[in-house]
Amino acid sequence: MLTKTHTKFIKSLQLKKFRQKEGLFIVEGAKNTLELLNSSYKIKDLIVTEAFLKKFQLELNNANVEPIIIKEKELSGLGTFQSNTDALVVAYDQIPQTYKSKGFDLVLDDIRDPGNLGTIIRLADWYGIKNIICSETTAEFYNPKVISASMGSIFRTNLYRKDLKEFLSENKHKKIYGALLEGLNVHQVKFEANGLLVIGNESHGIHPELISLIKDRITIPKIGEAESLNAAMATAIICDNVFRNH
Amino acid sequence: MLTKTHTKFIKSLQLKKFRQKEGLFIVEGAKNTLELLNSSYKIKDLIVTEAFLKKFQLELNNANVEPIIIKEKELSGLGTFQSNTDALVVAYDQIPQTYKSKGFDLVLDDIRDPGNLGTIIRLADWYGIKNIICSETTAEFYNPKVISASMGSIFRTNLYRKDLKEFLSENKHKKIYGALLEGLNVHQVKFEANGLLVIGNESHGIHPELISLIKDRITIPKIGEAESLNAAMATAIICDNVFRNH
Repeated sequence: MLTKTHTKFIKSLQLKKFRQKEGLFIVEGAKNTLELLNSSYKIKDLIVTEAFLKKFQLELNNANVEPIIIKEKELSGLGTFQSNTDALVVAYDQIPQTYKSKGFDLVLDDIRDPGNLGTIIRLADWYGIKNIICSETTAEFYNPKVISASMGSIFRTNLYRKDLKEFLSENKHKKIYGALLEGLNVHQVKFEANGLLVIGNESHGIHPELISLIKDRITIPKIGEAESLNAAMATAIICDNVFRNH
Repeated sequence: MLTKTHTKFIKSLQLKKFRQKEGLFIVEGAKNTLELLNSSYKIKDLIVTEAFLKKFQLELNNANVEPIIIKEKELSGLGTFQSNTDALVVAYDQIPQTYKSKGFDLVLDDIRDPGNLGTIIRLADWYGIKNIICSETTAEFYNPKVISASMGSIFRTNLYRKDLKEFLSENKHKKIYGALLEGLNVHQVKFEANGLLVIGNESHGIHPELISLIKDRITIPKIGEAESLNAAMATAIICDNVFRNH
């Protein structure tokens, strides 16, 4: 059972300002709950329905947290999703500071839409990209829409928040690619295995002060008439080209 | 100026049932309005602010419809978007019946999310794909979120609504590709220029009764751990492979 105070506290985490103040966030639904339990994230509260507990007894035992059992109706009221009949977790956020990587990583300059960010995280996880470095203005990592769209991939990816001008300057020894117009045809580039790919804002592209730090402009050839591609779609297409010969 | 009855009528078009009853839909904002004016769609009402009228006098003259001028505040209240300071158009829908095509086309089986549908339309337009054939259960074409995500591309694309089992049976002479697991590596397929690509539902994939009609299963190689890719992202990656040698 949940006390009134506890219920109120969890509901407060629907808002960014309380998530950031407490260093906590909520995860809703079966898929993301199970992915979280299987990750390195630390759990504060594990709230489940009787049915979910029975179905995933083994996975829940591994969590090393005593589950709190509540009714479906109460559970739906706790989170942001209209229907959640399974579980909700309150977890401690985990934002690494020190960047080190030997692989190919993504750099997101001002991706504002939480759905886009979540989808890009899922894509990165598909291609085995471990690190995503985000500008200060990129959507909040623990926004429920980001978590939902990432389909669990957020718990397997290191998400950094950095001043990108500084970050790119410090990583000048790497090949820095950027999704830009009038660049090299993505089909003809031989990508370096430990490069960085910069993706810009949905409406305005990459910030001008970062462009001078980009060594290779990468362009997706256009055949039809659309002015541009959605940022997440462009990321998908470029990543597929990066990894096609790996 | 708009009469009360007219205002009420336009607002009613925010709902699917009235859009379908009237065969009309609304388009909001500068970008989509200008793209619509430049298309074959027929316009019923063109509602603009004074500032928008001045800025796009020429484009608006071409519309052959007398613009109705209203204040910004009234305009925002008419549509579904929180801020629209430019224009709103009421247009007649245009859903073609007879499918004919010599090019590569998309077939969407039960794409439910309006954002995904809109993004796929924009992608199709980028690659010059002219026809998208949708199942009865795919999102409504004139949902404001579809129009917004398509960024004007919806006015350059033929969107059909068909029974897909019938449609694919009638088009057996074409090569029918499907995005499915355990298929051919997308990087190694030589796509036929007049093929059809079937994309399935966001959660459940392609409907079992359609799978037997698919000649080539296409798979995007996975390196990391995500279980699957977002439907729109998978479409983007496959389309880029279809058109890379065109």
